[in-house]
Amino acid sequence: RTIDSLYVARGQKIGSLTALIAKAKQKDITIKEVDVKKLDFMCGNANHQGVVAVAAIKEYASLDDIFQLAQSRGEAPFIILADELEDPHNLGAILRTAEHGVIIPKRRAVGLTYAVGKSSAGAVEYVPVVRVTNMAATVDLLKEKGLWIYTTDMKGETWCTVDYKGPVGLVIGSEGSGVSRLVKEKADFTVTLPMVGHINSLNASVACGVLCYEIARQRQGIKAN
Amino acid sequence: RTIDSLYVARGQKIGSLTALIAKAKQKDITIKEVDVKKLDFMCGNANHQGVVAVAAIKEYASLDDIFQLAQSRGEAPFIILADELEDPHNLGAILRTAEHGVIIPKRRAVGLTYAVGKSSAGAVEYVPVVRVTNMAATVDLLKEKGLWIYTTDMKGETWCTVDYKGPVGLVIGSEGSGVSRLVKEKADFTVTLPMVGHINSLNASVACGVLCYEIARQRQGIKAN
Repeated sequence: RTIDSLYVARGQKIGSLTALIAKAKQKDITIKEVDVKKLDFMCGNANHQGVVAVAAIKEYASLDDIFQLAQSRGEAPFIILADELEDPHNLGAILRTAEHGVIIPKRRAVGLTYAVGKSSAGAVEYVPVVRVTNMAATVDLLKEKGLWIYTTDMKGETWCTVDYKGPVGLVIGSEGSGVSRLVKEKADFTVTLPMVGHINSLNASVACGVLCYEIARQRQGIKAN
Repeated sequence: RTIDSLYVARGQKIGSLTALIAKAKQKDITIKEVDVKKLDFMCGNANHQGVVAVAAIKEYASLDDIFQLAQSRGEAPFIILADELEDPHNLGAILRTAEHGVIIPKRRAVGLTYAVGKSSAGAVEYVPVVRVTNMAATVDLLKEKGLWIYTTDMKGETWCTVDYKGPVGLVIGSEGSGVSRLVKEKADFTVTLPMVGHINSLNASVACGVLCYEIARQRQGIKAN
């Protein structure tokens, strides 16, 4: 199983741990130095020897897996790019409305943890999730592969007036800082979800769900009231 | 401040606690008997004498507050009835897309806890939340006040083909068991969110968000693509 991240007790980068950390770095595994109490908590106070590896609950997929899934269903690809989401509830809920796959960054983002799997209500078993090192480079790659990239912003076209029937890459921003500037600049379409309710920002998975249903509506040719 | 619930250590209904519990019951406060370790955890291991009261982070509102808010904005009322939601992330996210108010049941449901307030990203400050003892009776009352009651089910009219421009009461079911049969039977409209993705059930707050945006779209007269 893929190791998502390695938690190391602060100040314990010694002896055999040094070799382990070097090996993990080679494999591009995120290393997090934390208080030893956090490790105690993670292990339910069992003996951990100063290091805890968190495995992904499912193997990560490749971009090809996503394109093949879309092709096998005879549908234009629809890929969600979840940019630096930290809340497992959000990633889990996004997996539930994802059609062909989700792309997440390797760093500064929650991976396929147990909490994400639980929030996904089983969807994690069906949806290919790809981890990439550089989200902006991935956007370029997807554009080369013919996808139109859609992102959200306060200033943009009203969400339901835009055409989503072609190959879609939908960027969902992080809870805190939204979509990164670089990715925003690369997008082909900027859509707006106008304010509904009292707070001028949506929960990431709710925004994603609203857009997924609009995309499904258009692709299925459902005429709105 | 309103006390949401009273946690009592198992087997400690003695002495002065008995009087306290009787008083709480009189005031219709939910009493939960739990392991003493849960109380230790809730209090960060501080001394709790076997009883912990959880206060709501904001006073609950009345139905009149909701109707007045709608009237003051010159809008047809749009009330969300959240039936027995247990996950604070869900109620918090629902508060973010609520227009005029949310109704929750007193029992078997999360109240206005700290976690709900945090997930609401501040919306808890603006949205009136009403607690009721009997959700089915409340549906009857809302119908008398002229609301059309909408609920969701696998078999129903496609969500975006139904008219929501009149006074709306939207019922959102619990994570586990959906909308209760009694409330379902009282509904005027049953709408369906067709399957998008791989799992045939939506996260409660995502379902609510999709419907809130459709209702807003119709009320604002936005023509969909």
